[in-house]
Amino acid sequence: MAEDRLFIGIAGGSGSGKTTLSSRLVEQFAGLISVVSHDDYYKAHDDLTLEERQHINYDHPNAFDTDLLIEHLRRLRQGEAVECPEYDYCIHNRKKETHTIWPRRVVLVEGILIFENPQLCRELDVKVFVDTDNDVRLLRRISRDLTERGRTLASVEEQYLATVKPMHEQYVEPSKKNADIIVVGGGKNPVAFAMLSGLIEKYLAENKI
Amino acid sequence: MAEDRLFIGIAGGSGSGKTTLSSRLVEQFAGLISVVSHDDYYKAHDDLTLEERQHINYDHPNAFDTDLLIEHLRRLRQGEAVECPEYDYCIHNRKKETHTIWPRRVVLVEGILIFENPQLCRELDVKVFVDTDNDVRLLRRISRDLTERGRTLASVEEQYLATVKPMHEQYVEPSKKNADIIVVGGGKNPVAFAMLSGLIEKYLAENKI
Repeated sequence: MAEDRLFIGIAGGSGSGKTTLSSRLVEQFAGLISVVSHDDYYKAHDDLTLEERQHINYDHPNAFDTDLLIEHLRRLRQGEAVECPEYDYCIHNRKKETHTIWPRRVVLVEGILIFENPQLCRELDVKVFVDTDNDVRLLRRISRDLTERGRTLASVEEQYLATVKPMHEQYVEPSKKNADIIVVGGGKNPVAFAMLSGLIEKYLAENKI
Repeated sequence: MAEDRLFIGIAGGSGSGKTTLSSRLVEQFAGLISVVSHDDYYKAHDDLTLEERQHINYDHPNAFDTDLLIEHLRRLRQGEAVECPEYDYCIHNRKKETHTIWPRRVVLVEGILIFENPQLCRELDVKVFVDTDNDVRLLRRISRDLTERGRTLASVEEQYLATVKPMHEQYVEPSKKNADIIVVGGGKNPVAFAMLSGLIEKYLAENKI
């Protein structure tokens, strides 16, 4: 019989603090949590030129190979390791390399749009949406793109208004209603962390292998 | 030294499912949880006639004696029992009777407007907002007022539009931002219940008397 596993989805807009929250959980339960990121599942587009790939809307649900993610989650649930694709943001295409995700007792699934897909939602036992004000998220995004990714303010602004903001309003914000709980004010919220780590602790204690 | 206690605030609009959630927690931790309801702290108005009292806006923060509630919470925190006022909704005034609230290990504070008051927020270790759509809340309110309180639909409608709805928009909805977590879809949400009961269990285990 397949071992029991707890699948926790952590969603939220760009810059909301999803990664902060999941990193803190991974640190707390070292070796017991696997992390799967929806971003790694951007579709491969060997059929398109670089220029064509540059014009894809990467903030739309269709940019992701969510079927593959769902298949991988089902295999992890059955106790199989999976080879997770990797994505090259420079050439806007999938890399040849993959990395292995092990079927640990707790699997965190992270992504902006993971609660938008009803089939994906059904794979998740606990759905947490990290909610942060749009202006605060924008500030984080500007700071990250300028300092870590060497982009210009003009290019950040253009992308934000062209796709990030409209896709957030159309897909991310309404998907909040599919969450079980909403974390107010980002990934450093101590009460949300205590509640989630309490839940995981209890799960691990009651579902010993 | 005063015993350590955990104060959990449960807020949410009228008909959101606050009471459902707190009743389930009280049942789960029988004898370990005290409940304090902000509604019991409606101001006494011996100075006004019945007609004048009928015209008070009971959905406004000023209708409550929140200072007395805060004083009571501080006394409970110190391990003292308090005499909680009772309110007579027929004569719109405080009753002569009180009931005793014992200083149990966990104190649930329940009310529509408890996150609106910054001083009251500081007395709460965990702040949970139960979020339910306005139309669903209204349906519950109509059903409750018609069947349990023998009111007419016209009177429910009048009160809803005159005070319930505007006060919700002005005070309750913005106070969500003072919560730590938001429970999506009401008091029967199983994940929120598991997380809260996990938190309480962990608190009781780690803070033995």
